[in-house]
Amino acid sequence: MNTLSTYVGLEDHKVAELLRALASKSLTVSVAESLTGGLMLAVLTEIPGASAVIRGGLVVYATDLKHQLAGVDSHLLDRVGAVDADVALALAAGTRRRCQSSIGIGLTGVAGPDPQDGKAVGTVFVALSMAADCDGSVQPREGHYSRVLELAADGTRADIRAAAVRSAIQLLAGLTQSQPA
Amino acid sequence: MNTLSTYVGLEDHKVAELLRALASKSLTVSVAESLTGGLMLAVLTEIPGASAVIRGGLVVYATDLKHQLAGVDSHLLDRVGAVDADVALALAAGTRRRCQSSIGIGLTGVAGPDPQDGKAVGTVFVALSMAADCDGSVQPREGHYSRVLELAADGTRADIRAAAVRSAIQLLAGLTQSQPA
Repeated sequence: MNTLSTYVGLEDHKVAELLRALASKSLTVSVAESLTGGLMLAVLTEIPGASAVIRGGLVVYATDLKHQLAGVDSHLLDRVGAVDADVALALAAGTRRRCQSSIGIGLTGVAGPDPQDGKAVGTVFVALSMAADCDGSVQPREGHYSRVLELAADGTRADIRAAAVRSAIQLLAGLTQSQPA
Repeated sequence: MNTLSTYVGLEDHKVAELLRALASKSLTVSVAESLTGGLMLAVLTEIPGASAVIRGGLVVYATDLKHQLAGVDSHLLDRVGAVDADVALALAAGTRRRCQSSIGIGLTGVAGPDPQDGKAVGTVFVALSMAADCDGSVQPREGHYSRVLELAADGTRADIRAAAVRSAIQLLAGLTQSQPA
């Protein structure tokens, strides 16, 4: 049986190294997933010992759950739709607060086969939100670091979801190389 | 690339048929996942058109999130630990209410490599909770149908997680064959 890491185009030992690096900095992670529907968390939690880093997350497949579970502003969703950079950032910040993790990841996009909210198939936004103090405490007004990437992914539904997971894992890996202030 | 359905030992067309059967009964599904860490939702949402049935879910990997996100009684968790039939039932009922789905699935167990809360590696509880009226409304005191299965799964961490997902999908498939009152 292949592993889920290889399924999304990553090497197991790289994902395990990432988790060890995050654990060594006492960083914890949660993920709010839309188009990937749980795949990023499934990849991370397949690695033994993931519980030292991964707290959990929110699968917000239906648009209303992005508001109800992850706290994304419903007016923002009404205005821009579910596939948007600001929605990805709000998902990342929302899961970080709701799951009390030091880092939140948000993924939203169009896996296809049909376009969604006026966005083409393959459009993906991946965001990362990190508390400045990195202690995982719930302080909504604290300073924080955030990043968002936009992808135009090719291929099948599975290819697009895998590309989204790879990008999110690269965002996390960036943190372990040079820690932002 | 193989599919996630085949990764867990199921056939794609069977999973797609299940989703069509649930959609034809206007049933919606959410999942609260512990040991599987998002894998069940990832399998279901890989099928095109899954959004007609799948609302989303909660990945409650850390024990405290089982209480905080899915509403599992913290005294129950203190008393029996995270790997228990009643915890699986509470996860299923909790995600059903939180995600406003007609059906909730809860998965908890020990994927290994180490035992947890006094339970052996491979111990898995899979639960299903369905509102009697099946309209997805939030009525905590309503009558409802529920079932829970205990598995003793063999193999690797990936094998145990795959067995948990297969059992949960079988529970769902049972509903589409003879609808409980």
